[in-house]
Amino acid sequence: MNRIKLLTITCLFSITSMAQVMVDESTKMLYSPDESVFLWFSIDGGRPYYSVSYKQQPVVKKSYLGLELAKDKHASKGLEETDLMGDFQLVDTKKSTFDETWQPVWGETREIRNNYNELAVTLKQRETNRIMILRFRVYDDGVGFRYEFPQQPDLNYFIIKEEHTQFAMAGDHTAWWIPGDYDTQEQETQESKLSEIRSRFHDAVNWSNSSVSVFSETGVQTSLQMKSADGLYINIHEAACVDYATMHLNLDDKTMTFESWLTPDATGLKGFMQTPCQTPWRTVMVSDDARDMLSSNLILNLNEPCKIEDTSWIHPTKYCGVWWEMIVGKSTWSYTDDFLSVDLDRTNYQTAKPNGRHGANTENVKRYIDFAAKNGLDQVLVEGWNIGWEDWFGHWKEYVFDFVTPYPDFDLWELNNYAKKKGVKLMMHHETSSSVTNYEQHLEKAFNFMNRWGYDAVKTGYVGDIIPRGDHHYSQSMNKHYMHVVEEAAKHRIMVNAHEATRPTGLCRTYPNLIGNESARGTEYEAFGGNRPDHTVILPFTRLQGGPMDYTPGILETQLNTWSDNKNQVNTTLVGQLALYVTMYSPLQMVADLPENYAKYADAFQFIRDVPCNWEQSIYLEAEPARYVTVARKAPYEGVDCWYVGGKCNEDGHTSVIKLDFLETDGYYNCTIYADAKNAHYKKNPKAYTIQKKRVKKGDILKIKQAPGGGFAMSLYEANPSLKAVIR
Amino acid sequence: MNRIKLLTITCLFSITSMAQVMVDESTKMLYSPDESVFLWFSIDGGRPYYSVSYKQQPVVKKSYLGLELAKDKHASKGLEETDLMGDFQLVDTKKSTFDETWQPVWGETREIRNNYNELAVTLKQRETNRIMILRFRVYDDGVGFRYEFPQQPDLNYFIIKEEHTQFAMAGDHTAWWIPGDYDTQEQETQESKLSEIRSRFHDAVNWSNSSVSVFSETGVQTSLQMKSADGLYINIHEAACVDYATMHLNLDDKTMTFESWLTPDATGLKGFMQTPCQTPWRTVMVSDDARDMLSSNLILNLNEPCKIEDTSWIHPTKYCGVWWEMIVGKSTWSYTDDFLSVDLDRTNYQTAKPNGRHGANTENVKRYIDFAAKNGLDQVLVEGWNIGWEDWFGHWKEYVFDFVTPYPDFDLWELNNYAKKKGVKLMMHHETSSSVTNYEQHLEKAFNFMNRWGYDAVKTGYVGDIIPRGDHHYSQSMNKHYMHVVEEAAKHRIMVNAHEATRPTGLCRTYPNLIGNESARGTEYEAFGGNRPDHTVILPFTRLQGGPMDYTPGILETQLNTWSDNKNQVNTTLVGQLALYVTMYSPLQMVADLPENYAKYADAFQFIRDVPCNWEQSIYLEAEPARYVTVARKAPYEGVDCWYVGGKCNEDGHTSVIKLDFLETDGYYNCTIYADAKNAHYKKNPKAYTIQKKRVKKGDILKIKQAPGGGFAMSLYEANPSLKAVIR
Repeated sequence: MNRIKLLTITCLFSITSMAQVMVDESTKMLYSPDESVFLWFSIDGGRPYYSVSYKQQPVVKKSYLGLELAKDKHASKGLEETDLMGDFQLVDTKKSTFDETWQPVWGETREIRNNYNELAVTLKQRETNRIMILRFRVYDDGVGFRYEFPQQPDLNYFIIKEEHTQFAMAGDHTAWWIPGDYDTQEQETQESKLSEIRSRFHDAVNWSNSSVSVFSETGVQTSLQMKSADGLYINIHEAACVDYATMHLNLDDKTMTFESWLTPDATGLKGFMQTPCQTPWRTVMVSDDARDMLSSNLILNLNEPCKIEDTSWIHPTKYCGVWWEMIVGKSTWSYTDDFLSVDLDRTNYQTAKPNGRHGANTENVKRYIDFAAKNGLDQVLVEGWNIGWEDWFGHWKEYVFDFVTPYPDFDLWELNNYAKKKGVKLMMHHETSSSVTNYEQHLEKAFNFMNRWGYDAVKTGYVGDIIPRGDHHYSQSMNKHYMHVVEEAAKHRIMVNAHEATRPTGLCRTYPNLIGNESARGTEYEAFGGNRPDHTVILPFTRLQGGPMDYTPGILETQLNTWSDNKNQVNTTLVGQLALYVTMYSPLQMVADLPENYAKYADAFQFIRDVPCNWEQSIYLEAEPARYVTVARKAPYEGVDCWYVGGKCNEDGHTSVIKLDFLETDGYYNCTIYADAKNAHYKKNPKAYTIQKKRVKKGDILKIKQAPGGGFAMSLYEANPSLKAVIR
Repeated sequence: MNRIKLLTITCLFSITSMAQVMVDESTKMLYSPDESVFLWFSIDGGRPYYSVSYKQQPVVKKSYLGLELAKDKHASKGLEETDLMGDFQLVDTKKSTFDETWQPVWGETREIRNNYNELAVTLKQRETNRIMILRFRVYDDGVGFRYEFPQQPDLNYFIIKEEHTQFAMAGDHTAWWIPGDYDTQEQETQESKLSEIRSRFHDAVNWSNSSVSVFSETGVQTSLQMKSADGLYINIHEAACVDYATMHLNLDDKTMTFESWLTPDATGLKGFMQTPCQTPWRTVMVSDDARDMLSSNLILNLNEPCKIEDTSWIHPTKYCGVWWEMIVGKSTWSYTDDFLSVDLDRTNYQTAKPNGRHGANTENVKRYIDFAAKNGLDQVLVEGWNIGWEDWFGHWKEYVFDFVTPYPDFDLWELNNYAKKKGVKLMMHHETSSSVTNYEQHLEKAFNFMNRWGYDAVKTGYVGDIIPRGDHHYSQSMNKHYMHVVEEAAKHRIMVNAHEATRPTGLCRTYPNLIGNESARGTEYEAFGGNRPDHTVILPFTRLQGGPMDYTPGILETQLNTWSDNKNQVNTTLVGQLALYVTMYSPLQMVADLPENYAKYADAFQFIRDVPCNWEQSIYLEAEPARYVTVARKAPYEGVDCWYVGGKCNEDGHTSVIKLDFLETDGYYNCTIYADAKNAHYKKNPKAYTIQKKRVKKGDILKIKQAPGGGFAMSLYEANPSLKAVIR
């Protein structure tokens, strides 16, 4: 073993020597538990740096670490504005090993192993005597590291002008990126060489989004998935972004070096810190197998354990809602067309003339409640239930909603009673219109209102420019707000599904009532012009790294003009929509289409009725970014072995070869396969599908063809389960 | 009468002709009820303008009106960013008269007459078809006018880049001004010619204040008091500043024209408007008698009537507090010296070592409660009762206080009980450290906490730079915050005394639970280096125009080094401090010195014990800005005629000649006069005073000498009141 290590180190020396790196006493090295990932740390002229390799291939070349501080006009001493960039010496080193298995409240697997080797280097700035700790955790599938600042007289408070964490890439990788932006994440992902980002940047921006704030022509968002020419999959993101600004990456496309670029607040400053404190973890995931990118728990593992003591009220949730009909344009969130603008304190809704197209009316909501009850769905989301929607967007308006006053045609009492009788709950909707000041003023009352009426989940929204004006969606202050809402919600035993909030960084481990996020381009864009067919085989590599997405799948009637004036077509096959319930993991899954559309495809809909949204085990069978994702998931039923398999592909189609060796018993399984018909095509023939039922057994091999923009979905039920079979 | 009017108009023509003004069909003129004030309105090349004269002397020369709009990136139409500056034509004119007498919940007088003539001109912008109304109210002591924007398709939302309201002065007046500043009002007032503002500006700024944001070398704050060479007193301020930024004035010192300069928020923009809406009233008070400046109710009258239905819980309040001993430096707000910084969620106070100087300890607070009970004071303010003070200021820190957690040595239960037994209430203190985000998150809980413990008044504070960061103390958003606190407090039946908040504009008429404000340099500065002796004979002309000030008078031990290490000396005589209870009207009066200091001057203290802080009637007897103010006020006792007279002067001293013709009955009055001793002097001999008791009657003339920096105080009780005498 020692000989192997020596060989490896020798190889690394050859790598590092290319970068003219000296090994001296400040140089520290660390392997991951299985030795596939190797971390190098050292100091160069007072500047700390690191590098990462994977199986002796460079992943991150020599990359400097440091923070640039802003002048703090409040500071009594000048010291606090001296940068934390250089003049460092190593004063202490600690290495340790950690191996623990923990159970998430909900997740892709019932147990998660957290196994890493840790290196903590304590650095001292010579002139200032200030201490900074760099903590590295090396996993078999990547590295996480962060800056830590112990409390100390000369580093008590400080202001971050910019974090300068480098990630020097070893080549001109292929990257799946979206433009760096302080206010939107709802972009179509670009696939290009790193060197091509600049030339493609302008066209990659979704300029029509409600709030756009790009900052650099080579600025991109994380999680950023890359692939090297040698077939290494590399992913850069962050974990546990708490009380800190969200990180972007800005590329120096001469050296292929990314550098962190934080989101500022209204002052242009990027972080207000009080020691003791730390940055979020900066993560670099790496593997030579794309499936490892999807099965990795590195980001969850770097988050703190659950802080909510009693989690009994947190539950995976399948829901439908009065939503898609508004997105498509058949009905409206607003109740009337009478008003030029709305003043919640003065506008009289009682005398207003209804526009006749208001979706959230009592009768229509009852229809959805009936649908939910009939099909085993837990909840019914109702958007547009509360006054203000006539004038909710586009004017940086502050007092947009009060979150407690229903429209005259929404009978709150009747509907909650009706739902209760049917064993269903209504799901609350709080669109804030990004008027955060207003939301915080109403939050306590709004949550009390939910408790009073029996709601236990809220979908929040942050469409538009932030109030306090000048602030951005992903700044430290806004990240604090999102956490504040999640924490206050937990006190009220409320689950949160935040839309347009900061992209997640694994915080759902710590606060599992954060049951969902949007934070990317969702299904709604299918009605606004379309998502590319490869969109949902990129998201698992990027957006989903930090936590589940409320992607709102299930649009079986992909041709919207069959039931509305919307000319758009969803860019998947019908079966592709079924597949998403398996390939896009989320404990919160919407059944997004209209009841009447599901009635048209009742046999296919059966899969949506059946599929759970919590899992015992997940095995990624096939994966390639922007090409295909195939995953088998074990349902959390005790006493029966039951699996769901989903496959989704891009516009090229894909043939999956699935060996059923994951099945746990030797008996037969009842297998139902929902597949694209032979001539299916996401554009030309999206609704051609077959449903095949057969008996299979462990070890069988299934070959399933996915159409262009298509997919497949499959259920496998142990034929002879014990009588004790129960849902866990 | 017609002939007189004609003459007057002729005179005005000569004035206006100097400014080359044409009388055309858009020209409108209006007199005040007694014809002393005259308003001229017209349009010049599409630009509206006005002028004001007083008894045929020019007060405001031709001054343009208009608003510059900012580009609204959210607007769907370009129209909304077209300025509201010109291209206007007159489309309608309405004149009316109003005369009403109303009763304030508390005030200087029991009844207030609101009598004005009104001119409302409706203007239409030719190109845009947008309507703007200018509403002028002409009082006998000045003019108020505002911009109104009816709801209309082409003016629905708009953003104000700047308001360009001009106030063209007719000469190089003497002005009492403080530097225009977005974040502090705690300046020493400057007396200079308008032309001297620029050269004196830099030295006039209180650069050491916790938050300074000056914007122009000729920028000043309102209320701005001026005096012309001809002896006209002119005051510019604003009334009813609601949902709008606070106005400053920027002087063009070539033309002696002021122009409005609003306070921006973090974006640099100054107003976010939704029609129907209006600006605050812009006010110009004028008289040839300085006393009219003080007795004017123009600003209160321009505010909306009381919006609080049941006001029975709002009461004038005399209070002492654990405060001056910290200001002077004898004790501390903080409990311990152990902490480098505080994290309210993690810092352990229970194990901290007390610093032994914490003012708000149970024993000391009891001492103040005893003092209050013994001397008929209503409440005891306790500052530094809640955790966080070790680290409350100077770092733009967000989570500074939670407003509900007492220090270990402050026994909340015991003290509230003890106070209750003694017939006294504790007064709450909420220092926000300007972390408004944090305060709003805790507000509901903090007010519930007050209700639970029986507090009915809160002193709030806004020291330091605002969070949300980048915002300013007097912006539209912050003004909305202050109103939000007052409104939420009213729901909890809580009175508010806001320190460092926006200077008041008469809103206490509408929300009489806004019982006090600081919003200027208070008594605390006497311990920080001193207020000039003329400070308190300027404030009634300036700061007090908008509402009462919690000036915290009553420092009888003016030489601070007699009981502390503080070397400062209060820059009034002892008797001068007594006078302030009469000359500086407030329904909230602090008895600010320490109990042991009052014990030293028990005979003089008797006046503070006796003097009420609500009045039936007020008669200003003598007044000259920065020189002297003398006022007689009738106590609100039924069945007895009882008056208090106070006089205060600057460093030159003053001899008041007071004719007692305001007394209402013909019998004798028991008169007690607290006067400076002959050799008294605010610096050299501040505590030399005499107390003289005598019998006087209506019509008597009293000659009372006030020492340099001194004053006098006097009570007059009808000798034979009816037996029914009760406090109203």
